[in-house]
Amino acid sequence: MDLVSLADIRAAATAVAPTVLRTPLLPAGWDDHLWLKPESLQPVGSFKLRGATNAVAALDPVGRQRGVVTHSSGNHGQALAYAARAAGIGCTVVVPEGAPAVKVDRMRALGAEVVLVPPPRRGAEADRIAAATGAALVPPFDDRRIIAGQGTLGLEIVEDRPDVDVVLVPVGGGGLSSGVATAVKALRPSAAVIGVEPLLAAEAQESLAAGEVVVWGEERTYRTCADGLRLPLSPLTFAHLRAHLDDIVTVTEDEIRAAMARLARDARLVVEPSGAVALAARLFHPDTLPAGRTVAVLTGGNVDPDVLAGVLGAPAALG
Amino acid sequence: MDLVSLADIRAAATAVAPTVLRTPLLPAGWDDHLWLKPESLQPVGSFKLRGATNAVAALDPVGRQRGVVTHSSGNHGQALAYAARAAGIGCTVVVPEGAPAVKVDRMRALGAEVVLVPPPRRGAEADRIAAATGAALVPPFDDRRIIAGQGTLGLEIVEDRPDVDVVLVPVGGGGLSSGVATAVKALRPSAAVIGVEPLLAAEAQESLAAGEVVVWGEERTYRTCADGLRLPLSPLTFAHLRAHLDDIVTVTEDEIRAAMARLARDARLVVEPSGAVALAARLFHPDTLPAGRTVAVLTGGNVDPDVLAGVLGAPAALG
Repeated sequence: MDLVSLADIRAAATAVAPTVLRTPLLPAGWDDHLWLKPESLQPVGSFKLRGATNAVAALDPVGRQRGVVTHSSGNHGQALAYAARAAGIGCTVVVPEGAPAVKVDRMRALGAEVVLVPPPRRGAEADRIAAATGAALVPPFDDRRIIAGQGTLGLEIVEDRPDVDVVLVPVGGGGLSSGVATAVKALRPSAAVIGVEPLLAAEAQESLAAGEVVVWGEERTYRTCADGLRLPLSPLTFAHLRAHLDDIVTVTEDEIRAAMARLARDARLVVEPSGAVALAARLFHPDTLPAGRTVAVLTGGNVDPDVLAGVLGAPAALG
Repeated sequence: MDLVSLADIRAAATAVAPTVLRTPLLPAGWDDHLWLKPESLQPVGSFKLRGATNAVAALDPVGRQRGVVTHSSGNHGQALAYAARAAGIGCTVVVPEGAPAVKVDRMRALGAEVVLVPPPRRGAEADRIAAATGAALVPPFDDRRIIAGQGTLGLEIVEDRPDVDVVLVPVGGGGLSSGVATAVKALRPSAAVIGVEPLLAAEAQESLAAGEVVVWGEERTYRTCADGLRLPLSPLTFAHLRAHLDDIVTVTEDEIRAAMARLARDARLVVEPSGAVALAARLFHPDTLPAGRTVAVLTGGNVDPDVLAGVLGAPAALG
């Protein structure tokens, strides 16, 4: 399988620069060997803007006229809407009925056309729109343009911290972890890139152990509060992670909530559950991780205020 | 009176660069003409690190051996402790008894020696230590080195956004607003620099109207939840603000809390009450402000988790 290369990621970095925030590496006040990469500060609140912007930038003039389409109930839909608006092209997002009204409102505020359908029909409806209008389908992770775009985050880590020893990155569908592992291992082969996922949605860990994509199904993965990490890998992302990822570790639900509380209290960052798993690994499983200068990727910050308020009462240290 | 110059601020920018985070300008997702300058992301959670680092950098070799001393119950003490540790010199902070234990613990964790005294004795005790040990006294705002250090924030705003029209900056003792106004008006005279303070602690507004420093006293200013903005100006900061500030506007306590909630929800930032006043002015008093591309300075993020949890239930829009 043809994997995304460092050259692809460097090209993506040029393409996304006008739209994507170059997030700073923040030293963690409580740990002299830890830095945080807060993608929660992106305009739409998550790293998804990197891949979406790169996919939009890859369109030719005819493709730009026809616009883009995707299906999403969350961060990817907002990111594509933002990227399309920044490029001045049309965007349609197919949203499953029952998605939070605030997210639908934000997509519309960004100029996207929102099409509400029963959840099982979302994929077919996006395909139908793409076929009918010629709009380019932009999937959330199973796509080389998306992986290259997310990989720009890995470039920035090594540029800002050339002596990095360990990068901790959340694994959901695997687009981000594929891109980051590709970039970091190419630029600094001695650094370890470790995936992190919830114990209740550890499909990637099981897939890598089994040597093939394993799918748990929504009835199992929906147990985790980390709603961005409930998806299985695709064959494309599986191939990248098998080639480049050093290991995968898992964290519990209590550890995720405690990491969110630590970030709000001591790093002054609002991070969603999926965005806190990398820090949870550093806080609660240091013995399972390589030693050294560590970067934890905080993937996003779109969390319900009530959930955040509840977490603020959680203990920052467990046990 | 000899005012801090742009050259002083440029020299400070070089001196603080190794220690201070160059915070990004974040586009506000809900307002196409607004950017946020999140000093809450500094390692100690506030802009105070800029001035403290510049004051430490100004010490000569003998001064470095003798270290620094200050009195503070809050952000300045933590900032000076961090700056001193970064420079490898000693630091003593005189803390009034009754200050939050978490803040005392953080100063100690940064290597500072903490001296607890009854509140009325804090100034005299810091003076006594300075006289007895030769340590340099570093006040929180009434100091040219501090003003020059805080002014580096203004340099960054104009570098990142050369077309800025309006800068909104909180006013407490006036160190930050003096430095920022000096830098911005020197580099872009057409930009308006507007101070913001709580209606319940509007000493700076009254001082500028009266043409002299007016002091309300703690029994009045302690009514505001913005605990970093309860101090009067000094003659030095008054002189800077009279020379460079275009106007001062005030905000209510409800407006401050609503701005904190907006920042947590829509910018994914934890900001303390004092840090939210500039955004409160933009959200609730746009008619009293000049139009155009606006930067709101978010000064810090050290807020009690219970206070933040309470605010998350507040309406993001009033009325």
